[in-house]
Amino acid sequence: MALRAVILAAGQGTRMKSTLPKVLHDVAGRPMISWVVDAVAAVSPDQIMVVIGHGAEAVEESLGGGIETCIQEEQLGTGHATLTALQAMGDASGDAVLVLPGDTPLLRSETLELLARLQRRTSAAVSMLTADVANPAGYGRILRDGWDRVVGVVEHKDAAPGQLNINEVNGGVYVFAGDLLPAALQQLKTDNVQGEYYLTDVISILAEAGHSLGALKATEDEILGVNNHDQLAEAARLMRRRITTRWMREGVWVQDADNLFISAEVVLEPGVRLYSGVHLEGATRVRAGASVGPDAFVVDSEVGEGAHVWYSVVRGAAIGPECEVGPYASLRPGTVLGRGAKAGTFVETKNTVVGEKAKVPHLSYMGDAEIGAGANIGAGTITCNYDGFQKHKTVIGERAFVGSDTMLVAPVTIGEDAVTGAGSVISEDVSPGALAIERSPQQEIPGYAARRRKKAEG
Amino acid sequence: MALRAVILAAGQGTRMKSTLPKVLHDVAGRPMISWVVDAVAAVSPDQIMVVIGHGAEAVEESLGGGIETCIQEEQLGTGHATLTALQAMGDASGDAVLVLPGDTPLLRSETLELLARLQRRTSAAVSMLTADVANPAGYGRILRDGWDRVVGVVEHKDAAPGQLNINEVNGGVYVFAGDLLPAALQQLKTDNVQGEYYLTDVISILAEAGHSLGALKATEDEILGVNNHDQLAEAARLMRRRITTRWMREGVWVQDADNLFISAEVVLEPGVRLYSGVHLEGATRVRAGASVGPDAFVVDSEVGEGAHVWYSVVRGAAIGPECEVGPYASLRPGTVLGRGAKAGTFVETKNTVVGEKAKVPHLSYMGDAEIGAGANIGAGTITCNYDGFQKHKTVIGERAFVGSDTMLVAPVTIGEDAVTGAGSVISEDVSPGALAIERSPQQEIPGYAARRRKKAEG
Amino acid sequence: MALRAVILAAGQGTRMKSTLPKVLHDVAGRPMISWVVDAVAAVSPDQIMVVIGHGAEAVEESLGGGIETCIQEEQLGTGHATLTALQAMGDASGDAVLVLPGDTPLLRSETLELLARLQRRTSAAVSMLTADVANPAGYGRILRDGWDRVVGVVEHKDAAPGQLNINEVNGGVYVFAGDLLPAALQQLKTDNVQGEYYLTDVISILAEAGHSLGALKATEDEILGVNNHDQLAEAARLMRRRITTRWMREGVWVQDADNLFISAEVVLEPGVRLYSGVHLEGATRVRAGASVGPDAFVVDSEVGEGAHVWYSVVRGAAIGPECEVGPYASLRPGTVLGRGAKAGTFVETKNTVVGEKAKVPHLSYMGDAEIGAGANIGAGTITCNYDGFQKHKTVIGERAFVGSDTMLVAPVTIGEDAVTGAGSVISEDVSPGALAIERSPQQEIPGYAARRRKKAEG
Repeated sequence: MALRAVILAAGQGTRMKSTLPKVLHDVAGRPMISWVVDAVAAVSPDQIMVVIGHGAEAVEESLGGGIETCIQEEQLGTGHATLTALQAMGDASGDAVLVLPGDTPLLRSETLELLARLQRRTSAAVSMLTADVANPAGYGRILRDGWDRVVGVVEHKDAAPGQLNINEVNGGVYVFAGDLLPAALQQLKTDNVQGEYYLTDVISILAEAGHSLGALKATEDEILGVNNHDQLAEAARLMRRRITTRWMREGVWVQDADNLFISAEVVLEPGVRLYSGVHLEGATRVRAGASVGPDAFVVDSEVGEGAHVWYSVVRGAAIGPECEVGPYASLRPGTVLGRGAKAGTFVETKNTVVGEKAKVPHLSYMGDAEIGAGANIGAGTITCNYDGFQKHKTVIGERAFVGSDTMLVAPVTIGEDAVTGAGSVISEDVSPGALAIERSPQQEIPGYAARRRKKAEG
Repeated sequence: MALRAVILAAGQGTRMKSTLPKVLHDVAGRPMISWVVDAVAAVSPDQIMVVIGHGAEAVEESLGGGIETCIQEEQLGTGHATLTALQAMGDASGDAVLVLPGDTPLLRSETLELLARLQRRTSAAVSMLTADVANPAGYGRILRDGWDRVVGVVEHKDAAPGQLNINEVNGGVYVFAGDLLPAALQQLKTDNVQGEYYLTDVISILAEAGHSLGALKATEDEILGVNNHDQLAEAARLMRRRITTRWMREGVWVQDADNLFISAEVVLEPGVRLYSGVHLEGATRVRAGASVGPDAFVVDSEVGEGAHVWYSVVRGAAIGPECEVGPYASLRPGTVLGRGAKAGTFVETKNTVVGEKAKVPHLSYMGDAEIGAGANIGAGTITCNYDGFQKHKTVIGERAFVGSDTMLVAPVTIGEDAVTGAGSVISEDVSPGALAIERSPQQEIPGYAARRRKKAEG
Repeated sequence: MALRAVILAAGQGTRMKSTLPKVLHDVAGRPMISWVVDAVAAVSPDQIMVVIGHGAEAVEESLGGGIETCIQEEQLGTGHATLTALQAMGDASGDAVLVLPGDTPLLRSETLELLARLQRRTSAAVSMLTADVANPAGYGRILRDGWDRVVGVVEHKDAAPGQLNINEVNGGVYVFAGDLLPAALQQLKTDNVQGEYYLTDVISILAEAGHSLGALKATEDEILGVNNHDQLAEAARLMRRRITTRWMREGVWVQDADNLFISAEVVLEPGVRLYSGVHLEGATRVRAGASVGPDAFVVDSEVGEGAHVWYSVVRGAAIGPECEVGPYASLRPGTVLGRGAKAGTFVETKNTVVGEKAKVPHLSYMGDAEIGAGANIGAGTITCNYDGFQKHKTVIGERAFVGSDTMLVAPVTIGEDAVTGAGSVISEDVSPGALAIERSPQQEIPGYAARRRKKAEG
């Protein structure tokens, strides 16, 4: 029996008050729907069909390979969307059809796997996901008979007072028998407030026809649907917590699990220490024994073993082992720090290689530069890499000692072991071992302060 | 029937261990009492009287127009304070008298409105606010008869064991029949631990005299009184959450609703994105599509459409559309950024206009300056605006290219399209299109490094 | 009756996936075990014996004076560890023996005191700590008879279905009668999953022998044992909250109690204001009326009365009264700020004394310097304190006016009231009241911009 999956992602989410399609809103660094698609893909269905709304090509573009889409031209409800998908998929009789919303990012693939297995084992008309929730208001309640068998779903608005106390609710995730689904969908009516075809009504149709229903309980978070920013924030919080817990179990020390933002793709090694207020995003890897934070933002970067990055912003950088970064550094794309290098306080780097144990301790901008091993860059040093038209390169030799406030007018090369005088503008290459200096004689004008004050007061 | 309101704000809050009057402590950017006064004012009473303690003129000063105050000279309890207010208000017989504490900042005006309406409709002796709370310890419990009618309040210390299990408690907010209140207050006694006249005892007095009592249930947070810093922090947390939720419902995306600090007056537009660790205060407006944070502090400022402000402190600034600010910028009062301008990393501005698409990318201080559209300010550039006595102005023309580490000794003007050489001190005006440079020839001293090392070692 | 204490700290905590012994992991700025040792020491036992694992000398080193240790060579369980301790302590018959784990950092000394007192009063075979917990899974359940007397403990795996509903659990903290403990320990068997001698089995042995058992209920947090990073993070969160609450009760205002990191040794005075994202560590004292944060890290430092430190990192510094620090300052060890001094934006200091009301407002590095009272340091000023071999000192006189971008090539002295010209490299001492300047004439090359553009395009 093949398994086909339909993901309903056509809802416009008007309560988000956003021009972005609802299922593209970000949850822990990825579009909401990509969490759902990945959970579905992990159970290896034979086909995945995503129903998107008219004009929602952006959703289609966000999907990976092997995913088909079909368009629901009009917003006629989830039942209609499912029918649209079935028509696009071709004959599914004999198959099991998983149907689920595109706005439940916390759904686990393990749960979908169990649900599909339940359906295979029982051959029910439908196996549905339920959850016991603290506040069932608004949800369809699950009705069970004296033998604890599911016999139906009653919508909140139709529930008798006693039924309102039921806190097992319908999660909106189903595996249908492909033989029965199309006919049941055809029976849907639009006699409801919104005038739409509701997929949930299929459950009653199947139950009333005497078919058996199956149910599997998920945890409450898994069925959390996102319809507004409150729910989006809550889903993101739960997802972040799930990711953080996973890394804690891998041996990552965390100062404050509630103030940590680790995206899905990030890789951490055991012994990593994460302080509060840390954002790790994109293709980022933090190696064993490194510590990040407090208050650091690291995206698409590597942090080497034993390195320490705090109060800094790091983008597209490779930080070597035992490096020190911050407080208050900004490493921009193309930055490579060799083992034991330092990018200290009020230091910005871009497209720059800093050699082993080389140090840029303070108040510097290093752009389009190569800094040799063991070099020391004085405070206030700037690579004048941009002439208003093009960027040029600065090369600083090993063990060079660049004096404070040196302007390196690129293209320029400072030789190995060379020294520059503080406050010099270096626009010509400096030979290895030489001192380069650009400076006038210091002059003193006695009594200046008194005259200046007199003038200011007078 | 007129409605008069009495706010009890004379309590000294000794458990705050603070010299500031208790009701002036800050909750989400405003003094606690201003939340209460606003909630009361929203139900449009005919008179608002705030009872303040002796010496608490600061409370009086914090109140807006249309609010009267009277002074409770001695701390003789809430009953005495109410009597003091009644005496200051004049004859209130025939009116309804709303009495409430000044330390319940989370009370909603909608709730007060409903309570006043309940009293008008029922003509009870008093309509009181109650709430079901998780932990009723310390509160007066609400007693109801078999018909669910309120028949009295029993204080925690006087409650029978069975009564201690009641979790509906007295919120301390009442609308009294003005005819009955003065006489009931006169009957109060001070036979209690603190030797004070308690307003709550009026309820029993009225009940025992056979008058009917009304009650309206509020949510638990609304009756949260603030008597210590624990409760102040909790009240502030709840208020922040209330404000954040309001903006989420208006279409604001929020990365972490628990780590966001939006003051009451701030205005946000749909599509705004707020990352974690953001503080928005004062007369601040963030326009559609702008994103702020992580870790930004913005007060009395505007953030334009599509602008991006992160890891920065912004005070009294107007940031235009599509601007980039940070990471690590400090914009001080009088900063105006034109469309698409940039104040980048380690950049401080003050009283400075940055023209459209002009860029101050790094390590600069721009004070009292006008920067023309399209100008580019090199790293390390500083306006020397202060001569020790006065501040002077710097004018930089459109499309000017200010080289790195240029000192602009104000007053000074750089013409349109002009260029300055890196490391130059510019103390005279520069003509449009010209290059201005202040520099000595670069000199090289061969073999310096070796001699220096020998000397250092020797 | 003497009291002896045994702390079981030999567990390896393999689920931490760390090379650090489990009990040395940090909770709120201290190793986990030091919280336990301090709680035990506060009840003044006659002897404290800590059982450490083979190779865990680091644990021994972390302990203070008056603490003895013994080594459990093989990991044979808590019962074996207790026996090892008893053998190391000598004859304890006639004494009471407190035995507790080294991984319960939240245990209060008050609770231990009450437990020891209970044992003294009742002369039970053992008095044990219990707690009602929300989720008892995994814990041993406390069995009580109809008179509410403890009659035994049943391990989770052995519990009957009805017993699984018991939510009073064994906290693993005991005071034993020294007469009975050794014999009971000798009866332990290893017929369990891990093949270890379990201390908890002693309870059943004593109960089955007809001895009486006593129990004292603690709060849930107190018995929280730390076996993985999840639990470590939770313990740290609770400990931080406990510390923060303590300071709030002392009159400290806190913006967000959930985003504050105050280590155990830190001292705060009433009227201190702490904004969100603040880390206070080590020997730090914040004086009355000072405000810290948002987003500040302060370690081993003093913050004076009324001072304001925000968006800054402060290490080993003494900040005087009414000082302003930040946004974006880094004060490093040896920094001393006099009354009313300012270290502003993008300012780093190290081993530097800043006199009263002296100001370092922006973009400066002051290392190994003495700055006189009332001096003003221009933006971009740098002490060139390092010549590549040694650090040298800079002295700036009172009321001196150091121009922007002045390089102070140490050793160098700027006299009182002296002035330096912007962009000057000052390598020779400046006399009091004099102006020192190092500058070339400004030159202008007309038409440069147009030629440059033509060249760039051509």
